[in-house]
Amino acid sequence: MVVATGRDSARTYREAGVDIDLAAAAVARIADRARRAFGRPETAGEVVSSGIGHFGGIFRLPGDPTRTLVASADGVGTKLKLAFVLGGDAHAGIGRDLVNHCANDILAMGATPLFFLDYVAMGTLDPNIIDAVVGGMIDACQDNGLVLLGGETAEMPGLYAPGEYDLAGFIVGEAPGGQVIDGSAVEAGDVLIGLPSDGLHTNGYSLARRVIGLDGDPDHDRGILAAPLPGGDGRSVGEALMAPHRPYAAEVRPLLGRGWVRGMAHVTGGGLPGNVPRMLPPGLAAAFEPHRWDLDPLFVHLVEAGRIAPDEAARAFNMGIGFVLAVGAEVEADVFASLPTARRIGAVVSADDQDDQAQSTVWGNPQWRQDL
Amino acid sequence: MVVATGRDSARTYREAGVDIDLAAAAVARIADRARRAFGRPETAGEVVSSGIGHFGGIFRLPGDPTRTLVASADGVGTKLKLAFVLGGDAHAGIGRDLVNHCANDILAMGATPLFFLDYVAMGTLDPNIIDAVVGGMIDACQDNGLVLLGGETAEMPGLYAPGEYDLAGFIVGEAPGGQVIDGSAVEAGDVLIGLPSDGLHTNGYSLARRVIGLDGDPDHDRGILAAPLPGGDGRSVGEALMAPHRPYAAEVRPLLGRGWVRGMAHVTGGGLPGNVPRMLPPGLAAAFEPHRWDLDPLFVHLVEAGRIAPDEAARAFNMGIGFVLAVGAEVEADVFASLPTARRIGAVVSADDQDDQAQSTVWGNPQWRQDL
Repeated sequence: MVVATGRDSARTYREAGVDIDLAAAAVARIADRARRAFGRPETAGEVVSSGIGHFGGIFRLPGDPTRTLVASADGVGTKLKLAFVLGGDAHAGIGRDLVNHCANDILAMGATPLFFLDYVAMGTLDPNIIDAVVGGMIDACQDNGLVLLGGETAEMPGLYAPGEYDLAGFIVGEAPGGQVIDGSAVEAGDVLIGLPSDGLHTNGYSLARRVIGLDGDPDHDRGILAAPLPGGDGRSVGEALMAPHRPYAAEVRPLLGRGWVRGMAHVTGGGLPGNVPRMLPPGLAAAFEPHRWDLDPLFVHLVEAGRIAPDEAARAFNMGIGFVLAVGAEVEADVFASLPTARRIGAVVSADDQDDQAQSTVWGNPQWRQDL
Repeated sequence: MVVATGRDSARTYREAGVDIDLAAAAVARIADRARRAFGRPETAGEVVSSGIGHFGGIFRLPGDPTRTLVASADGVGTKLKLAFVLGGDAHAGIGRDLVNHCANDILAMGATPLFFLDYVAMGTLDPNIIDAVVGGMIDACQDNGLVLLGGETAEMPGLYAPGEYDLAGFIVGEAPGGQVIDGSAVEAGDVLIGLPSDGLHTNGYSLARRVIGLDGDPDHDRGILAAPLPGGDGRSVGEALMAPHRPYAAEVRPLLGRGWVRGMAHVTGGGLPGNVPRMLPPGLAAAFEPHRWDLDPLFVHLVEAGRIAPDEAARAFNMGIGFVLAVGAEVEADVFASLPTARRIGAVVSADDQDDQAQSTVWGNPQWRQDL
């Protein structure tokens, strides 16, 4: 799907060290093995859905099919590397990122958040950093109506460089009345509605770091991150890149209550083309209309400075859209009235229709490429 | 609590880069902040217990107090560093370690396992390693009656050294009938019964690596790990150190069904003196009787080669006991009849009685020190 640009300095996500195809193949193999091990509809008397490939795993509690849990595990990726350079409040932002990422994943299944657990690992525990990260997690848990139920703080000498850490989050929610929104109700002709992201959220940082020229020297990197964002609003490059993952529950849950939403996608690794299809039933495809929304200066800067092909950028970055709803055309106007920041970003089409068009026409819209 | 030995080459866990006190202080601060944020008995209509400090977090599902979930997050620590050197089957063992560790944590609360999620992060994804780790996790999930419900496989260039990775596991179980075994029924005079560990499980590896002289050079380290374990049974040092975490559910759950068990402790970071007190009500203490069990050659070798003081060793290693039950003295004989490998390792005493004795007498038993 990558469109050749003919420019010799074009950057790709793979060159930056992240191979989405390889990762997808590994996940597919895991899913296959897990299906063979656990995929029977009845396991020891429990009705179980393997959720690998969904935004969250679905687990129906034994003895009461109306009690259905939705769970997800996530990390924040190499956005961490920027926090290591910037320090201070950046660590609290990372904590918020982790919780909001997890909460958005189970929101995309229609689940109400219940509780959250974290894993934080450092070479040598730095109480200031741990406190900042956990403080951000606690704040975001409260924002999302989540209980921070526990976690693991691991000291692992020799595994992490001094001052560096990794973290993972684990969330459990419940689908009201056992009704998971898995996109099975989505139909051709439905409208795709995008909610704006607050920057890159937690995806594409390996590519972004390479594009802006970070080299791992803290003084050098701090200088680059302190520079004003070109074409921006006065924020520095670092501020724009560190904006935490936006939580969508407050905007989306009222729409769920009205029954307007047939499918949802959380735009994470793989971008819009990698995530929107995850909510589509077989035989349907997403036809994006990228000329319908403007790009934030951060995305314009990254794509221009890195000479990144549009299709490559769309897989590495969320391109300004963090969460997508599929709704019937008849409620489109109502959704916009309820969500002033939302915009139409495309439509659901039959996969046959999509195959009739060149991939580059559907996704790498010429209008949008001009904008870049 | 560390007993000075007067030997100039004595090794401590702190010297090996792991500061248990610092970690405990960080966890205590997190627990305090979480309590302030979430510690109300009623949160948005849900009855919630913050489980930080327990072996798992307790969450009562809204609307039905008999449905009580128990959740835990864990990693495997620097045992990973040995797997990086040894490769091959060691990675599958790490996967088993992670699942069994998590399953034992919620077993210690009396919970029945439901599902598991994992987080695996590498600098560059190595499909062979990921497949081996996930294969071990899938096997252990099946052993424990757990569904592998999902996970995150993260490629993080620059955060991990080539070939290295970290992983975290998240488990959710349910307390039958909402009855969590939290040790509140434990009484002075109860007997502490230990179940044997299969080696170090997942704790004490930073100290063990230092004691046996690993220096990070793969060829050098492989040589050390291939040597026969002194005083051992033909296993190499590496084989003894890589034995996966033992799952205790098959042995322990029949006893739970008979109502014999008043409290349980999973012996992880902090060893017996750090974990057994976690199941004791206020005013009670554990009086260990370490002369009652023999040490496996692995522990003898580590303690002797490292000249580790007994109290230090007891906090860094599980000393051959991986899981502890508190039972009434009247069922002690029945428990031994049911579990031939179990042994008495001490008794529950009032904290006043314990304070009357020197700490070193209660824990660093002279008889046991002779054995070492």
